Amino acid sequence: MKFQTTKGTRDFLPDEMITREHVLQTIKNIFESYGFDTIETPAFEDLELLTAKSGEDVAKQIFRIETEKERKLGLRFDLTVPLARFLANNPQIPKPFKRYAIAPVWRYEEPQAGRMRQFYQADIDICGSESMEADVECIACAVDCLKALGFKNLKVRVNNRKVLEGFVEIIKKKIPEEVKIEFGSLEVFRAIDKIGRIGTDGVREELKKIGLPKKQLGDLLEMVTIKGKFKEVLENGKKLLGNFAEGIMELEQMYEFSKSYSISDLLVLDFSLARGLDYYTGSIFEIEAETKKRVGSLAGGGRYDNLIELLGGRATPATGISLGIERIVEIMREGKLFESQKTKVKVFVANVDERVKSETIKIAQRLRKEGIACQTDMMNRSLTKQLEFADSLGIPYAIIIGPKELKEKKFKLRDMNKKIEKELTLEQMISMLKGS
Amino acid sequence: MKFQTTKGTRDFLPDEMITREHVLQTIKNIFESYGFDTIETPAFEDLELLTAKSGEDVAKQIFRIETEKERKLGLRFDLTVPLARFLANNPQIPKPFKRYAIAPVWRYEEPQAGRMRQFYQADIDICGSESMEADVECIACAVDCLKALGFKNLKVRVNNRKVLEGFVEIIKKKIPEEVKIEFGSLEVFRAIDKIGRIGTDGVREELKKIGLPKKQLGDLLEMVTIKGKFKEVLENGKKLLGNFAEGIMELEQMYEFSKSYSISDLLVLDFSLARGLDYYTGSIFEIEAETKKRVGSLAGGGRYDNLIELLGGRATPATGISLGIERIVEIMREGKLFESQKTKVKVFVANVDERVKSETIKIAQRLRKEGIACQTDMMNRSLTKQLEFADSLGIPYAIIIGPKELKEKKFKLRDMNKKIEKELTLEQMISMLKGS
Repeated sequence: MKFQTTKGTRDFLPDEMITREHVLQTIKNIFESYGFDTIETPAFEDLELLTAKSGEDVAKQIFRIETEKERKLGLRFDLTVPLARFLANNPQIPKPFKRYAIAPVWRYEEPQAGRMRQFYQADIDICGSESMEADVECIACAVDCLKALGFKNLKVRVNNRKVLEGFVEIIKKKIPEEVKIEFGSLEVFRAIDKIGRIGTDGVREELKKIGLPKKQLGDLLEMVTIKGKFKEVLENGKKLLGNFAEGIMELEQMYEFSKSYSISDLLVLDFSLARGLDYYTGSIFEIEAETKKRVGSLAGGGRYDNLIELLGGRATPATGISLGIERIVEIMREGKLFESQKTKVKVFVANVDERVKSETIKIAQRLRKEGIACQTDMMNRSLTKQLEFADSLGIPYAIIIGPKELKEKKFKLRDMNKKIEKELTLEQMISMLKGS
Repeated sequence: MKFQTTKGTRDFLPDEMITREHVLQTIKNIFESYGFDTIETPAFEDLELLTAKSGEDVAKQIFRIETEKERKLGLRFDLTVPLARFLANNPQIPKPFKRYAIAPVWRYEEPQAGRMRQFYQADIDICGSESMEADVECIACAVDCLKALGFKNLKVRVNNRKVLEGFVEIIKKKIPEEVKIEFGSLEVFRAIDKIGRIGTDGVREELKKIGLPKKQLGDLLEMVTIKGKFKEVLENGKKLLGNFAEGIMELEQMYEFSKSYSISDLLVLDFSLARGLDYYTGSIFEIEAETKKRVGSLAGGGRYDNLIELLGGRATPATGISLGIERIVEIMREGKLFESQKTKVKVFVANVDERVKSETIKIAQRLRKEGIACQTDMMNRSLTKQLEFADSLGIPYAIIIGPKELKEKKFKLRDMNKKIEKELTLEQMISMLKGS
């Protein structure tokens, strides 16, 4: 009888956990510096809630939980829907509500490179403000996180669902009356969203399936693939939709705010950015970094002004961004952006024989009180075997305790990497180990 | 359409999260000082794994996940079974393996006071050592955690499953031959385990159901309810089972080790302690604290020398303890053992009007770089409304930015509680806020 982790899930060993904790703690500190507080919601929610506005692709990926009598449940697939439900349940919370959440989510999809069925997201959201300042602050905060983790040459791709809506309206008007097709904007957005994976030709095929005539299809593709600097692309958008189209004005405001947050040089206006989830209503954004292997975005998000009301709450404009932890950690490990230790244990307190066992424990307990992480032997091993064990774990120091050392109150501190020893008193050792 | 958290689950608001994080961080630091490293396993596992050795009561409480084609899955109900599976999968890991895990587990039971369907456990386990030192170190570490959190008058109830087995053997031999009953020790343990909740008379009824004759039932209850100091109770055990019975010797060794760890005065030998899970094989223990309301144990654990082998791994003796986070947090909040803030935000950077918006953001960004958690206005509110908002969140300081202040490079820092203001330069403010 041998059990494995189930399909699409995996274990994380101590050295991986040290990297993961470094990533999560760095992000947490920056989230908090931006004035976000955290809340925690349960791992599972009402299935009906989860499927309400997620879009059909995601709805299929929800892990469903069997219950006998009660309502159907599902594991959360993101952290935004639970937040919206939370705000619907807690209308008394002062607005804007700035919350962060760092937690696992689950999606039942075919596992593939970099896609697991359990993965962590780190989200910030600002609920209650309709100002583009909120959108830009979320982006700036995520940019700071990625920079702090060592990512370079960041690029923030920005778009607005209202602009995309505008483009769809333009081509809808141009479709000859004899062509009788009906389609929703979301269908078009889902097709455009695939451009990074399947290219322009792939999207063309997808749009053909929806039924768009060749001419309008070409027009749409031309509009969404305008390239250039933020201001230039924006000018093109203005020509198409007018200076006072809401989406255009919002993009302009975002750009202005991005100057105050010192991130305007990172912003790229990309009309082909669509994002996969159905609940977005306005600005949408993704952050990429230059890395060795080409990978997709490290963070993404957008504005969802209707979601909270749709789930039973008060009308509450909201925006947020989510950092994809698994991908961030993977790239950091590949690119050696963080040098992980094998263990957090600082020192192995070795005993030369069983006679000094009790004194050894007492010294270890003393070190622990000082916050120095240590282990003692629990296998009745010889001193040599104890040091071999400490070495196999990657513990950087060892202290050797024997009757002579206890009598003289001087102990050998061994640097396991440099293989050198120093004779020190316990107090000297403590201050040395605390400092290192 | 209004959704709630599902039965037996709840949300945690920012002020509760601050308490929870204080608890988890305190525990994590102490776990690490004792030389434990962390691993993470997935939220769900093979259902067959989860039910293999959990006992029927727990098996009923597993949340089952629907899957189409694949093996049946379930949410983990504790952190020990996944650890055992992890070790079975990773036989190369050096022993003893000291790991901690702080994470939610799920049990599908009827919600009642203090029992939720999602709850956090904080576990330490030492795998690979059969020494009672390992058991005592786990207890000492948990005791240090509870002390650091402010719990007083701790009591560690200790027993050994081998001793209980010995008692069952004694009475089995005494049952007259004409009484034909068959029962397993686990059935008896499960009955005894309820003594805290249903009392001696309740246990008597449970044992009657198993079929124990009155005389032997009385003998058993007499044995498990011996009271007195550790050494005295141990002497009674010796009389019943002999000086060299394994369980007795292990208890004696535990007591000796507890002196080195300075916790011998907390140890109470209680032969009625049985613990609910089927996988325990030797020492078992629970930690209680004196609190206002009577509540059960705050931590519990024991030795499970067969579990890892049973799940397909090498024979690996193992022991561990689990801190019940929900109960700990609940008691700390009731007893005011920790004064939680309402928010981690330190300062609200208010702007007198829209003209200084950009400069206000820049000052906030400067503070964030220094690690000072701050918010700015995103609602176009008047200064008064901004300060009211900051107050409603419980933010302790506000900085007021206006054209005059920017020109003179002196800003008002307002203590929101004391309602006093000081004029300071930005640098003065930063060093003051960092220090407070």
